[in-house]
Amino acid sequence: MRNLDRNTITEAVLARHADTTNPRLKEIMTSLVNHLHDFARDVRLTEEEWLLGIEFLTRCGQISGDKRQEFILLSDVLGLSMLTVALNNDKPVGCTEATVFGPFHVEGAPRYELGADISNGARGVPCLVRGTVRGLTGEAVANAHIDVWQSDEDGLYDVQHPEIGHAQARGILSSNGEGEYWFKSILAVPYAIPHDGPVGELLIATGRHPWRPAHLHFLIKAAGYETLITHVFRSDDQYLDSDAVFGVRQSLITDWTRQADGTYLLEHDFVLNPTRVTG
Amino acid sequence: MRNLDRNTITEAVLARHADTTNPRLKEIMTSLVNHLHDFARDVRLTEEEWLLGIEFLTRCGQISGDKRQEFILLSDVLGLSMLTVALNNDKPVGCTEATVFGPFHVEGAPRYELGADISNGARGVPCLVRGTVRGLTGEAVANAHIDVWQSDEDGLYDVQHPEIGHAQARGILSSNGEGEYWFKSILAVPYAIPHDGPVGELLIATGRHPWRPAHLHFLIKAAGYETLITHVFRSDDQYLDSDAVFGVRQSLITDWTRQADGTYLLEHDFVLNPTRVTG
Ligand SMILES: [Fe+2]
Ligand SMILES: [Fe+2]
Repeated sequence: MRNLDRNTITEAVLARHADTTNPRLKEIMTSLVNHLHDFARDVRLTEEEWLLGIEFLTRCGQISGDKRQEFILLSDVLGLSMLTVALNNDKPVGCTEATVFGPFHVEGAPRYELGADISNGARGVPCLVRGTVRGLTGEAVANAHIDVWQSDEDGLYDVQHPEIGHAQARGILSSNGEGEYWFKSILAVPYAIPHDGPVGELLIATGRHPWRPAHLHFLIKAAGYETLITHVFRSDDQYLDSDAVFGVRQSLITDWTRQADGTYLLEHDFVLNPTRVTG
Repeated sequence: MRNLDRNTITEAVLARHADTTNPRLKEIMTSLVNHLHDFARDVRLTEEEWLLGIEFLTRCGQISGDKRQEFILLSDVLGLSMLTVALNNDKPVGCTEATVFGPFHVEGAPRYELGADISNGARGVPCLVRGTVRGLTGEAVANAHIDVWQSDEDGLYDVQHPEIGHAQARGILSSNGEGEYWFKSILAVPYAIPHDGPVGELLIATGRHPWRPAHLHFLIKAAGYETLITHVFRSDDQYLDSDAVFGVRQSLITDWTRQADGTYLLEHDFVLNPTRVTG
């Protein structure tokens, strides 16, 4: 434990974790320490770079709060969020695919009746959204908990408007007995993820744009089915092939069709994966 | 860029960094993304674990401020700090070895004359500290900037006492024309690193103690020499073989000798590495 060098220190740190009682934590810490040390050795991290990294992470924490989550943004732009989604959502063919959760979900959004206008004052072109929630064998899923959220026409979520103290363009609905849902909202538009903080600096330094293709978020829960966290994307979006957070799935891209009166219609059906019966 | 899977996403993220203008940043981000993704794949990170990680990092940032740096603590307990020291301080034999900087250095500590009492009211057994600063060929280093800091007898630095608004047990001195330095301070004692935050939770979960062996911090700068960041450790300490931050070097361990009057004497000489002449 004295005179550790650039190679022996890794085993010394791992040895210190010998008394970890939770085997999963031990597994995670072992891999984490190995990869963290390999990273530092691979790049021969300098002391100045180490300090820049410390300061970067500190600022990510300090800018985060009730209404902003910079570490989720960081994970998103590094592809870690979408990788974690991929590792945990190996659903059978036919099920709706999952994508990133993002940093803008709010617990306890208002509940609405089917057909209600969830925009609640958010600015944008009116859009009717409707479809069904079904199981893998086509069965209607009644009473599914459907939590939806989206940005306004300025590309901002309600929580990004400091002057708005209430929920806009987000809400919770329940599917009816036939698995159907419908509600009024506004047309989704592409938006830039918050880039006035450390993650924005990283995007600039790496020559990346902060844009996400237009999308509507869905979180759908129902008894007997795996929870689905996903988006619906607009088929005419210019950022479908360069989403800043790597979340686009071809199967989640849908036409949002302009109606004669200038409003829009989005129709999308969801297929949930039945919970595996274990034991 | 659509339908990325758990393997193709890594190349997609790296491709997005193609326009990074700083080649060193590109090198670092490439290694970071590869190791971060390999870590997630190796452990098959779950979405719950991902969220725990996000929350852990967020809390590390939020508990940090002027007087606390949880990310340095995290780096320290994971061995990353000492690894970075090892990667950047390949000094010739005969030079004083470097060790971790730690989170308790303060810029702009008070300047003292040689012989002054830098404890400035900090509680502890009085201790005289003296020695020399020399170069590798034995030459005296005059006017070396010697920044020292240590904890009090309770194992706390001044910045950890919220009621103390001034520097205690820290200060800056200059070596004299013969490279000599001496000052009065207090006896260093082992201390527990701050463990009432997220890093403390990690230590508990991994069955680790938070203790560091007693030490006195030195940061020594002089024209024509590499800056030295190091400690002097006490030879009689019980934590020399289990330092929570992996910083102990055999060559930095010294006897702190008890004098007849109950005070202590620490004598330690430093040898600086001449700056390499380049070009
Ligand atoms: Fe979004
Ligand atoms: Fe210390």
